[in-house]
Amino acid sequence: MSYTIHELTTLYQAYEQQQPFDTGPQALYAPIRYILSLGGKKIRPLLVLVGCNMMNTDPRRALPAAFAVELFHNFTLMHDDIMDAAPLRRGKPTVHIQYNVNTAILSGDAMLIKSYEYLLRSAEIPNGSSLLALFSQTALEVCEGQQMDVNFETQELVALPEYIEMIALKTSVLLAAALKIGVLIGGGSQHDAECAYHFAKNIGIAFQIQDDLLDSFGDPEKFGKQVGGDIVQNKQTYLVIKSFELATPAQAERLRTLRNSQNTLANDLKIAEVKAIFNELGVPQATRTAIQHYESLALAQLSAMQVPDSNKKPLYELADTLINRQY
Amino acid sequence: MSYTIHELTTLYQAYEQQQPFDTGPQALYAPIRYILSLGGKKIRPLLVLVGCNMMNTDPRRALPAAFAVELFHNFTLMHDDIMDAAPLRRGKPTVHIQYNVNTAILSGDAMLIKSYEYLLRSAEIPNGSSLLALFSQTALEVCEGQQMDVNFETQELVALPEYIEMIALKTSVLLAAALKIGVLIGGGSQHDAECAYHFAKNIGIAFQIQDDLLDSFGDPEKFGKQVGGDIVQNKQTYLVIKSFELATPAQAERLRTLRNSQNTLANDLKIAEVKAIFNELGVPQATRTAIQHYESLALAQLSAMQVPDSNKKPLYELADTLINRQY
Repeated sequence: MSYTIHELTTLYQAYEQQQPFDTGPQALYAPIRYILSLGGKKIRPLLVLVGCNMMNTDPRRALPAAFAVELFHNFTLMHDDIMDAAPLRRGKPTVHIQYNVNTAILSGDAMLIKSYEYLLRSAEIPNGSSLLALFSQTALEVCEGQQMDVNFETQELVALPEYIEMIALKTSVLLAAALKIGVLIGGGSQHDAECAYHFAKNIGIAFQIQDDLLDSFGDPEKFGKQVGGDIVQNKQTYLVIKSFELATPAQAERLRTLRNSQNTLANDLKIAEVKAIFNELGVPQATRTAIQHYESLALAQLSAMQVPDSNKKPLYELADTLINRQY
Repeated sequence: MSYTIHELTTLYQAYEQQQPFDTGPQALYAPIRYILSLGGKKIRPLLVLVGCNMMNTDPRRALPAAFAVELFHNFTLMHDDIMDAAPLRRGKPTVHIQYNVNTAILSGDAMLIKSYEYLLRSAEIPNGSSLLALFSQTALEVCEGQQMDVNFETQELVALPEYIEMIALKTSVLLAAALKIGVLIGGGSQHDAECAYHFAKNIGIAFQIQDDLLDSFGDPEKFGKQVGGDIVQNKQTYLVIKSFELATPAQAERLRTLRNSQNTLANDLKIAEVKAIFNELGVPQATRTAIQHYESLALAQLSAMQVPDSNKKPLYELADTLINRQY
């Protein structure tokens, strides 16, 4: 039986809410319940369930693994928020603010361990240890991506391939592993599992680049964030890196001056001037081309999967939701 | 072939030094090499190898698991040192001092993941997933023990069973799991694996209580630390908790006053007065009795193991080294 995205979401939410985190010291487990309750799109556990279900397997079998991936993701959020000194997550105080830094460190650690515990419950399948190996490798890659991101903060010039590698490691490989784990639990072939992995990885990269584009050129009402936040914070983004790649020495100099202007230029002026340079250089169009490039790589992987087209419907739907083409 | 403790130590050290941590961002992996290089007794990996070898199995088979346990232990040190704001570990700057807090968080995370990765390499044995489940449960218990320890800092009165539970979770269960993992990899029976677990757990508890005793009553030259450190820092120890259990209301009041005297009383006077109360109450003798109690529980488990006595020799040796009876 094939489930819709909506049905899988309901299935997952019910499972997540039933998981007890009430044994042992509450100071350790309350922050886990807190961060899980902040919501979010639950895209990663959904990918696990979709992967399993597209192999004609009851998605309930993949629920522990789906929760494992969500626990892992929230562990990274908890620790990243400490490192970024972020006060808010989804409009609510981050764990290190709501509780304290030590609690956020230790509860995050417990969450990472719990994620392995839940994954183990799904590992009683043929070749289950390859599933655990994939999870460990992915988890390590996410740490490496976070480290690269931290390094970029103090790096003057980042090359585009390096940037793509960072976003792939920091976010896309977990989406990819989530879908692949689902396919493997569902009994999919190694070929289909690989296709699934690269579908989700490329969709993830496209989504991150789109996120960069929307931050500067999105409709603020649809995007849900203030436009230009990345510009104000001098973040390394696809747009900035592409600009330096395309700029004449004079344009590059203007861009550098603007990026050093936090105390001399009002934010809205800085945003307007940087965006003007992006436009001069045709960066928005180049960025759209990059998004389409990664999206088409993803869709090619999806069409190579050896399952009936009807089984692929939820993944086409997900791709449509994530890459909204409204820029 | 049976190896001596010394031979197993050499085997382990050689393996540890050969492990490459040189791929990926160095900011992530250099701190791992740094903390491993600080030395220590390597008691946990040794327990894994001893457990394997006492089942007449080549201890080399257990090397990845031994390293996994050592990685896990050092991950807890890295994160605990942040939480305790500890400047030094084995006489060298702690990771968050040598590098920075964010690096210590992220490298610690990577170390925890790496520990699973190495354990997986030893999990290709019959019932390997039970080995991973044991490791996850133990890892979670260690976090719970650390959380209990943090809670104790702001808790006026701690009960003795609570204290024993904390030291068991924070340190002993990892020693226990290390030995049990070794026995399982070595092909030992479930019975012997359980005995091994409880042997090491009880030796661990005895060792921790001995550590409390030596901190106040040990020979400073042999102990290697300043006598009375726990008293100066008002730590919850077996001695303090036992004292409150045995004290008259007047003695308890004196002890409470002394514990609130950090600004009014010189450290050496405070140490002398607290030790006088310990002696009045017969606490050193009660503590020795407790150490002997847990040691005898441990030795009973060891003698219940269904392997030739000659195979048990390294564990008797280890018990002798850890519980030195020189108090």
